[in-house]
Amino acid sequence: MSWQDKLRKVEPYQAGEQPRIQNLIKLNTNENPYDPGEKVKKAIQDFDSSRLSLYPRPDADELRKALAEYHHINENQVFIGNGSDEVLALIFLTCFNGHEPVLFPDISYSFYPVYCELYQIPYQKVPLNESFEIVKTDYYQPNSGIIFPNPNAPTGICVSLDFIEDILRHNQDSIVVIDEAYIDFGGESAVTLIERYPNLLITQTFSKYRSLAGIRLGVALGSQEVISKLYDVKNSFNSYPIDSLAQVIGLASMEDSDYIYQNAIKVIETREYTKKALKDLGFVMPNSKANFIFVKHPDYDAQKLFEQLREKGILVRYFNQPRIHQYLRITIGTPQQMETLIQEVKNILQA
Amino acid sequence: MSWQDKLRKVEPYQAGEQPRIQNLIKLNTNENPYDPGEKVKKAIQDFDSSRLSLYPRPDADELRKALAEYHHINENQVFIGNGSDEVLALIFLTCFNGHEPVLFPDISYSFYPVYCELYQIPYQKVPLNESFEIVKTDYYQPNSGIIFPNPNAPTGICVSLDFIEDILRHNQDSIVVIDEAYIDFGGESAVTLIERYPNLLITQTFSKYRSLAGIRLGVALGSQEVISKLYDVKNSFNSYPIDSLAQVIGLASMEDSDYIYQNAIKVIETREYTKKALKDLGFVMPNSKANFIFVKHPDYDAQKLFEQLREKGILVRYFNQPRIHQYLRITIGTPQQMETLIQEVKNILQA
Repeated sequence: MSWQDKLRKVEPYQAGEQPRIQNLIKLNTNENPYDPGEKVKKAIQDFDSSRLSLYPRPDADELRKALAEYHHINENQVFIGNGSDEVLALIFLTCFNGHEPVLFPDISYSFYPVYCELYQIPYQKVPLNESFEIVKTDYYQPNSGIIFPNPNAPTGICVSLDFIEDILRHNQDSIVVIDEAYIDFGGESAVTLIERYPNLLITQTFSKYRSLAGIRLGVALGSQEVISKLYDVKNSFNSYPIDSLAQVIGLASMEDSDYIYQNAIKVIETREYTKKALKDLGFVMPNSKANFIFVKHPDYDAQKLFEQLREKGILVRYFNQPRIHQYLRITIGTPQQMETLIQEVKNILQA
Repeated sequence: MSWQDKLRKVEPYQAGEQPRIQNLIKLNTNENPYDPGEKVKKAIQDFDSSRLSLYPRPDADELRKALAEYHHINENQVFIGNGSDEVLALIFLTCFNGHEPVLFPDISYSFYPVYCELYQIPYQKVPLNESFEIVKTDYYQPNSGIIFPNPNAPTGICVSLDFIEDILRHNQDSIVVIDEAYIDFGGESAVTLIERYPNLLITQTFSKYRSLAGIRLGVALGSQEVISKLYDVKNSFNSYPIDSLAQVIGLASMEDSDYIYQNAIKVIETREYTKKALKDLGFVMPNSKANFIFVKHPDYDAQKLFEQLREKGILVRYFNQPRIHQYLRITIGTPQQMETLIQEVKNILQA
């Protein structure tokens, strides 16, 4: 067996492109168009760089405490990781160790099957219905775990807490993970269900709602029992994943929650405005509650539109995948950015 | 099977304590006593916080380029991760997928067996000889990979490049990892061997030599073939592990390499001074080439000394483990800190 044979074979995940083009309108990776805020700015300016010679607080305890207060849960029900991608990967590694497949929607966050392949976890993609909705009864079958985003990505469709509770009731022997990366743009968080369902795990992120994609902070919320297991695995992997500056920045953002909330209101208003404008141009779309919309024009090829917008300096996301290859995912930017988008789309359709 | 049964069982790793005691002399986690430098300070002050709303550059390409230039290798021979613990964990997951055990010394970095347990990789601890030295012929046997630190931890003993090359020559079918976390305090890096041995992988860190434990930057250097596999696994785990600020800080540190080098010279001088002073008090120790020393007093119990120093506000590292339970690992701090340590040890021994 050569050393090459001892290497793990994986299909590398392709993230949305991060090109370095001046004046690009970047609507392809669901970043928040607004600034992280004055308190974050001040926290960085006030940071004493000599602290960096020391290791960070291993469990980011101050930030954990702030998150616990914010969500009205206990500190030991909060896990913090290096972005929600790391948190999700640790959840797959920690929580999905049964023999049955892990269940998630066929159209969903594309990292889920990647984690399964990486850790050799059996999985089954459960098709959404024709309207791209999750059918809850499809999840009433033996499994080693369930995960889906709420709102789902890239559709933006949100389910209710009753819906989630039905799935939890039918799955008391598995961890059910609700990936709430986009929950704060119009959905209702399932955090209130944690108390009654110790097998419920919720992930959130500082990347979208808090305009901090650049700093890598992801969160898991759940029962003390599950959270402590996540920490056991984290601590056998990397004792200090959250650097000192990220801890300070995260804390400053928590203290600026009113400002952050106002930004989300603006994103929601811009989303609803954009939906209407694109519908007026003939687009169809699910009713997104996220900071992106997922749109199709019945008479215009999605990939062609994607490429034409790119030529105009507007980057959106195109997925060359079954069922959704006629859709584009468009992140909600500032009103001005969306106005430019709408105008360019109009020009392209008219040409 | 309950949801609890589906949780992975791990023995959590216990890192050195990070207590919050005022005026503590902290010599327990091998941090560098010197400031990360003016260029790092300025990089933080000049950082435009509005950038944080965007994702970081996925592969930290500017920092990769700077590291490649520094080490006189190609950019695609450099991997950057969230601290060398993450880099090491990814290496275990990526590179050690054979049927034979992975080999590493019985006295070594305590995370190695933890990674093996986490990923269910078979391993074999190879005993150091009576002088705590690695015996190279012990590694001339079938294996799925070899890893050891150079200098070794917690002994501080360094091996030569000829020694490493002998191990490489006898192991052309496995990845051989040299963990160079402490190489810049007096050892010779094996980076120059990469060209001839595509199965050699070297890990380094910004935590020790560059006084940046707080920012979490770890590095792997190797052949393009192995590095690209590490990126494949990284990209299926977390596309953006290195936050924007960490990238900027790492780059600033690379540009301050002369200053960093002068600090290492000071650490080395202080280490040699401390060695002599403790030998004069009757201690014995291997010849450490790291930023710590590993000492034993023939007539004084190590755990007792550890506790008495702690009472005096001096924290060192005690390992309650076979073969080394009469040793203390002491990080090299500033000359003043070491003077205080030596004085307190003298007082304790005389009492």
